[in-house]
Amino acid sequence: MSAPVIDFWFEFASTYSYPAATRISALAADAGVAMRWRPFLLGPIFKARGWDTSPFNLYADKGRYMWRDLERLCIELRLPFRRPEPFPQSSLLAARVALVGLDDGWGEDFSRRVFHAEFGEGRRIDEQAVIADVLSGLGAAAEQVFARAQCDDIKARLRRQTEQAQRLGVFGAPSFVTADGELFWGNDRLEQALRWAKAGAIERRAS
Amino acid sequence: MSAPVIDFWFEFASTYSYPAATRISALAADAGVAMRWRPFLLGPIFKARGWDTSPFNLYADKGRYMWRDLERLCIELRLPFRRPEPFPQSSLLAARVALVGLDDGWGEDFSRRVFHAEFGEGRRIDEQAVIADVLSGLGAAAEQVFARAQCDDIKARLRRQTEQAQRLGVFGAPSFVTADGELFWGNDRLEQALRWAKAGAIERRAS
Repeated sequence: MSAPVIDFWFEFASTYSYPAATRISALAADAGVAMRWRPFLLGPIFKARGWDTSPFNLYADKGRYMWRDLERLCIELRLPFRRPEPFPQSSLLAARVALVGLDDGWGEDFSRRVFHAEFGEGRRIDEQAVIADVLSGLGAAAEQVFARAQCDDIKARLRRQTEQAQRLGVFGAPSFVTADGELFWGNDRLEQALRWAKAGAIERRAS
Repeated sequence: MSAPVIDFWFEFASTYSYPAATRISALAADAGVAMRWRPFLLGPIFKARGWDTSPFNLYADKGRYMWRDLERLCIELRLPFRRPEPFPQSSLLAARVALVGLDDGWGEDFSRRVFHAEFGEGRRIDEQAVIADVLSGLGAAAEQVFARAQCDDIKARLRRQTEQAQRLGVFGAPSFVTADGELFWGNDRLEQALRWAKAGAIERRAS
């Protein structure tokens, strides 16, 4: 019997993807759920709504609240927090590199480290040097990885993933989509998504 | 030693205020926190953002998600759920009546019943007959209550409460504001707000 599967849609520029990426592996293991990490870009999805930046920048009150909420959340989770400037940062390079890493088996670790650099240390993940730093921490050959990350195959895959996310109804990050198509949005819905996936698996086993 | 206090800012047109209003009293009692029920109107706050309706109507993908999320939440909480039409409904009358009821000691019960009528039974709370129904269920004299709800004092108080909410940084409902000014937004932040208020009370006692 195979484990239930959840697609974990995340975006490196998304603040709440940071706690989600940090928490998800242990929670999924406890629940017996397999997690498929799916980087994508929110930019094109926001653009389709008529937004040219993060809604946290467009709506100042919501933005102020989000930063404080994230800070409190990081305190509760004992995660380091440092607000990055500027926000949001281009996540295109990080997302492409993550796709290479997910092929090679170091993609989840890479993604967690990128979120940590960005929101735990306030570093600029839109700078190739910062991504190279993260890669050397993993023992990956940065130059070779960058060459692969810029090839047409990876570029096209990231575009397709983003289009797929949009078709699934994803409009923010992090989002969790179960095998039966249920969408859960936000770090605070992670546990519920796991319960849903588990309950579905039990139902399928019983029938 | 007095109990820590949280202001519970809610709006009768707000979907997530329904589960929050239903859950809040038992959770607050368990936590030893006093809850001050503060009805307000989101309309003027949304208008200041340039929105003439709920963001769930302005952004179709977010709206679709919210209704499904609310439905799932109600299943988990064993709350009845029926999507009201139209959405959102004018909550002006209900909010004014709630202020009268909070003066008279039946405001919390009234508010829970209004949410139940609206999102549990799909009734129209913008109709005076529906509010009158709720009032008779409470044994309150509807005609007298309506007369008081339409007096200048109550009208002005609702306006002032809405302005106060806005000054506190409230931009959505439900919101919870602790005595030290911390803002928590959303039904899913209720437990965290209670933890915050309790921890602050322990700190003050220790010092």
